[in-house]
Amino acid sequence: MKKLEQIYEGKAKKVFNTDDPDLLIVDYKDDATAFNGEKKGTIVGKGVINNRMTNQFMRLLAADSVPTHYVEELSDRETLVKAVKIVPLEVIVRNIAAGSFSKRFGVREGTVFKKPTLEFSYKNDDLGDPMINDSQIYAIELATPSELALIREYAYKINDFLKSTLLECGITLVDFKLEFGKTSDGTIILADEISPDTCRFWDAKTGEKLDKDRFRQDLGNVEGAYQEMSRRLFGK
Amino acid sequence: MKKLEQIYEGKAKKVFNTDDPDLLIVDYKDDATAFNGEKKGTIVGKGVINNRMTNQFMRLLAADSVPTHYVEELSDRETLVKAVKIVPLEVIVRNIAAGSFSKRFGVREGTVFKKPTLEFSYKNDDLGDPMINDSQIYAIELATPSELALIREYAYKINDFLKSTLLECGITLVDFKLEFGKTSDGTIILADEISPDTCRFWDAKTGEKLDKDRFRQDLGNVEGAYQEMSRRLFGK
Repeated sequence: MKKLEQIYEGKAKKVFNTDDPDLLIVDYKDDATAFNGEKKGTIVGKGVINNRMTNQFMRLLAADSVPTHYVEELSDRETLVKAVKIVPLEVIVRNIAAGSFSKRFGVREGTVFKKPTLEFSYKNDDLGDPMINDSQIYAIELATPSELALIREYAYKINDFLKSTLLECGITLVDFKLEFGKTSDGTIILADEISPDTCRFWDAKTGEKLDKDRFRQDLGNVEGAYQEMSRRLFGK
Repeated sequence: MKKLEQIYEGKAKKVFNTDDPDLLIVDYKDDATAFNGEKKGTIVGKGVINNRMTNQFMRLLAADSVPTHYVEELSDRETLVKAVKIVPLEVIVRNIAAGSFSKRFGVREGTVFKKPTLEFSYKNDDLGDPMINDSQIYAIELATPSELALIREYAYKINDFLKSTLLECGITLVDFKLEFGKTSDGTIILADEISPDTCRFWDAKTGEKLDKDRFRQDLGNVEGAYQEMSRRLFGK
């Protein structure tokens, strides 16, 4: 599969066309941003870890009946994926209060919910990715009711899968963000990534943060956290 | 019914105990605030109009199977209501994009929705009344699923009723905010008010704003807008 021209450069990934219009190549960078791009930095080795971790989770999810964009890992930073039109929603599932949830609703970080919460944000940098509900999503026609029902079903299923898989590695899944896309035939599939950039991972015993919050909050040992997550999932 | 001590003073109303613990007296003021209390002013005669309009709508809604806190109009500014514990949610129904919806989602004011939107805000001045969705309401235990289902059912019913009633008076109902309360036996009933303070009313022909936006946006003739709404509903 040949990497042709770059069609997109995001905060953490570049995307390239291939000679097949239904396939793209994703190239994971070490760049990190936070707070809507206000904070910028580099996390050495992050791209390699996020590529490997995302692909491993997506392979397991596909086996668990959640369709994903994953096709084939091409190198330690590059993966072949199905081309999709991204649904302009961030899908955030939370098991424990942290980050913007704690801030918005005045709930102490670490508060465990009886049931997970699920929220949508309208993916729009100019508007600051505002939270949006189902009736508003229909009103501005970002997704149909049946698409949203499927996305919600997949998101809860992914939460169940990730929570138990990570707990076996001694990791508490606090929350995470997903993005979904539509293939040319209209099928909704999981896209984007599942990594310490897009999830909050806490050590199940000590509560130590092993994710991008170390970068956001200047907690130090940022690279070490990503490496520790890789070690927990893949061994040495 | 005797007015005893004042138990609450809000932005637009005072509330007094009576000698019956299940009944309160609401006293409508002419004070107006906007933008979370940053802007303050007086709209002469507003309290009288809002008292009369709210009571009229609540009487009609009760007849249309929506239970309300309304008991009896005592004077031109005072009304006897059932005592409730307010559910800490603002319930906002929108037929047309305006105000914070337009700003948050970048949608032109005046865009008509195919179906109304309904959103909840967590009533909390310190947090700026943030928007909140169902799963978040359950997580922080602001209402139960069955309470929320009932509130949503009432809110859509109230929209249908108000929309058609107002259109007969040449008024387009753009959006409005409701609050619900729980009586001592746990029954959910409509509380608060329905007035130009809590609704957006546009002249159906000219689009002229006949509500508190005239105050918020310094459009002038604020008192005139309230008087015009009163005239449309009650005649001279």
